[in-house]
Amino acid sequence: MGKRLAAEFLGTFWLVLGGCGSAVLAANFGGDGNPLGIGFLGVALAFGLTVVTGAYAFGHVSGAHFNPAVSIGLWAGGRFAGRDLGPYVIAQVLGGLLAGFILLQIAKGSPAFSIMPGQAGAFASNGYGALSPGGYSAAAAFLCEVVLTAAFLVVIMGATHGRAPAGFAPLAIGLALTLIHLISIPVTNTSVNPARSTAVALFAGSGAVSQLWLFWVAPLLGGLIGGMIYKWLGSARD
Amino acid sequence: MGKRLAAEFLGTFWLVLGGCGSAVLAANFGGDGNPLGIGFLGVALAFGLTVVTGAYAFGHVSGAHFNPAVSIGLWAGGRFAGRDLGPYVIAQVLGGLLAGFILLQIAKGSPAFSIMPGQAGAFASNGYGALSPGGYSAAAAFLCEVVLTAAFLVVIMGATHGRAPAGFAPLAIGLALTLIHLISIPVTNTSVNPARSTAVALFAGSGAVSQLWLFWVAPLLGGLIGGMIYKWLGSARD
Amino acid sequence: MGKRLAAEFLGTFWLVLGGCGSAVLAANFGGDGNPLGIGFLGVALAFGLTVVTGAYAFGHVSGAHFNPAVSIGLWAGGRFAGRDLGPYVIAQVLGGLLAGFILLQIAKGSPAFSIMPGQAGAFASNGYGALSPGGYSAAAAFLCEVVLTAAFLVVIMGATHGRAPAGFAPLAIGLALTLIHLISIPVTNTSVNPARSTAVALFAGSGAVSQLWLFWVAPLLGGLIGGMIYKWLGSARD
Amino acid sequence: MGKRLAAEFLGTFWLVLGGCGSAVLAANFGGDGNPLGIGFLGVALAFGLTVVTGAYAFGHVSGAHFNPAVSIGLWAGGRFAGRDLGPYVIAQVLGGLLAGFILLQIAKGSPAFSIMPGQAGAFASNGYGALSPGGYSAAAAFLCEVVLTAAFLVVIMGATHGRAPAGFAPLAIGLALTLIHLISIPVTNTSVNPARSTAVALFAGSGAVSQLWLFWVAPLLGGLIGGMIYKWLGSARD
Repeated sequence: MGKRLAAEFLGTFWLVLGGCGSAVLAANFGGDGNPLGIGFLGVALAFGLTVVTGAYAFGHVSGAHFNPAVSIGLWAGGRFAGRDLGPYVIAQVLGGLLAGFILLQIAKGSPAFSIMPGQAGAFASNGYGALSPGGYSAAAAFLCEVVLTAAFLVVIMGATHGRAPAGFAPLAIGLALTLIHLISIPVTNTSVNPARSTAVALFAGSGAVSQLWLFWVAPLLGGLIGGMIYKWLGSARD
Repeated sequence: MGKRLAAEFLGTFWLVLGGCGSAVLAANFGGDGNPLGIGFLGVALAFGLTVVTGAYAFGHVSGAHFNPAVSIGLWAGGRFAGRDLGPYVIAQVLGGLLAGFILLQIAKGSPAFSIMPGQAGAFASNGYGALSPGGYSAAAAFLCEVVLTAAFLVVIMGATHGRAPAGFAPLAIGLALTLIHLISIPVTNTSVNPARSTAVALFAGSGAVSQLWLFWVAPLLGGLIGGMIYKWLGSARD
Repeated sequence: MGKRLAAEFLGTFWLVLGGCGSAVLAANFGGDGNPLGIGFLGVALAFGLTVVTGAYAFGHVSGAHFNPAVSIGLWAGGRFAGRDLGPYVIAQVLGGLLAGFILLQIAKGSPAFSIMPGQAGAFASNGYGALSPGGYSAAAAFLCEVVLTAAFLVVIMGATHGRAPAGFAPLAIGLALTLIHLISIPVTNTSVNPARSTAVALFAGSGAVSQLWLFWVAPLLGGLIGGMIYKWLGSARD
Repeated sequence: MGKRLAAEFLGTFWLVLGGCGSAVLAANFGGDGNPLGIGFLGVALAFGLTVVTGAYAFGHVSGAHFNPAVSIGLWAGGRFAGRDLGPYVIAQVLGGLLAGFILLQIAKGSPAFSIMPGQAGAFASNGYGALSPGGYSAAAAFLCEVVLTAAFLVVIMGATHGRAPAGFAPLAIGLALTLIHLISIPVTNTSVNPARSTAVALFAGSGAVSQLWLFWVAPLLGGLIGGMIYKWLGSARD
């Protein structure tokens, strides 16, 4: 079990360092209007590549969840043992937090860096209402996170099914995370992952922390729904 | 049959939610001139990734068409049974429409959102003439949709041929859809898929609906041509 | 032989339609400073994806050269029969020309379209000096095309070697073409492919035609060098 | 051994020509604010694709390190013989230097080209403090290079493990390098590779040379740490 938890710790560390790191350090390089920065497209790619690369590296060790909503969804879908849920989630949150901490140390090295707690997307935090990049309501944010996490789980379960082509699942799953970010960064700065949200909210200030509940409830609910949809699909008549 | 239709429903839902969703929510984030938005490149990537991920997840269930023009083209190419055409197309259109409806609920959550029915690309709708992003004529739009859908089918049939490398077809086919969007978003906002066009036209206003005929006729014609070209190629002397 | 030549014709058609099409229709959408256009990055991706998708579709038919410099380089490397060189090159040039013609019909459908023959990159043409996007000299253009085509052939021969992982060659080769464009669009608008250069030069005006010699000589020379380097490497002591 | 060293020479040549070449020639095309240039996102993609393509081409020859920090990390992880370290590093540095030299000849072909030695990122050089693109301190730069190189090695060792899916390692490793650049171009212009840093520093002027020590020490240290982390993980209880 130690090796599997270490893999979840390291993989979630990589997800937060890479995804949130690219958002904090590179998305808006040079300020507004400078096209050198990688923008939302670059951040979406970065999040996906953390999973592509992490899942090729650790998939054979821990299954490469890196996300409490994935773990709970796979449990709902009958692919993951309930007794492992707790330890996996703890390892994921701790790995994410270490990444948030290290990212902060790097970011502070720039004279231009500061966290503005009342600003949407501060330190790559997730948010709704005034803390949504596009000012989306809590209801829209909730719906968006639920639907996208559910779809994420359906893709994960389908791509890791025994009849799917072997070896391609990390690519499909990572690119699904890129796609999810391409859709929803303007809405919530995209979570679909409570560990990722927690990892930066604790450093981003009180606003992000007070909204953190949504980025646990909605992704976990979406994960459960996605896992159950695929399980139902698997039992349907061919 | 129920399982296969459910997969087509879910896959087309994902195609419209991801492709049209990224266009509506993220393409032009922050307004004109803001490089944070994902632009046409991000939308092209999103459409392709819906198929990459959806085909790894559902290819082993339904064949992962997600598109009436693909279903008819595969029928023309001798790869799909004619009696399944009707049910597949209905499942695709319904899945797309549900995605259009949910996308609208999310989009409405932003105070800045409104659908401008007379504007090219409103709610990610396809169009020609005044409703083409670059003002392209109906003839250019028709030619473009026919040629690109035909090429799409040729790639699909070639990449799923028994002699092509196993397992890579979802990647090749999804990236072909990205390529098609990289070429033609300025022309028609890119359809090559009547279900995708229908899914947003019904919410985009009367202008998009009145032009919807082209985005059924041209892709279906292109699909037929592409399927027949590959079938002819397969029977040519080696 | 007919089937193989048809595959080369169709594949080169796809390469020019997709690569040059994205450049002509979408690279600079909305005019200078509009970030919705796909830019050089999108064009680089499009060129690469024509080869990724075309090689999965046609690799098992013709070997998926789509490029006279590839055919001659593979001949120099001992992988392609000299007697097939002529027919392959003719099929490639004709397929490219048909794509150039169809692209012109689509592009003309926009009221804003015109070809400015004295402008660098007009109708996606290749050029040096006054016709280089960045004003690069003929010597720099020649060196750049030779080196990049040589590297392209080394990658092609290595990725299709019997000891390389099976099935990945189309991905590696297509992404190499993307990489080549990421480097050199500013220098020559990137050729490394005489068929691609010819396909648009004939429509782009007298300037592009008068410089076409370089985009035959340099890529063919580079292809020969690359093929010979890999052949030498293969015979070196392990 | 000659063949393996030639592969390392050619692969590192390709890494520097493609990665640094895209940065020098294409990243900021047209000057500030022009969205046609490929930006940091395009450069990140280019660096990654040099490794994706180079590793499919040369992985079966030399293992495709192309980077002294990778060689030393694989040695620390028990995957590479210590006696080969010296020759590999020399081949890598020489291959990189040849690419730097050829890139300079191409770049000089543009009338607008000049190297400004006191400017951050001049000729794609790495730097900290005044020579960091975002003005990051030496401590932040050091931390960033160590952490990212360590993570790179963990991904490399995991993706090439016997239980990881066969054939995907070049893709995972190359895309990890893209991800690393998406995070850290603003911090140090991204090294994680002493050969890449050396290859351009010698042409970029005295500032880059005087900071070159950090881009040997930090990546090599990170490589050692990453190799040891994975080795420890491999020996942990399952």
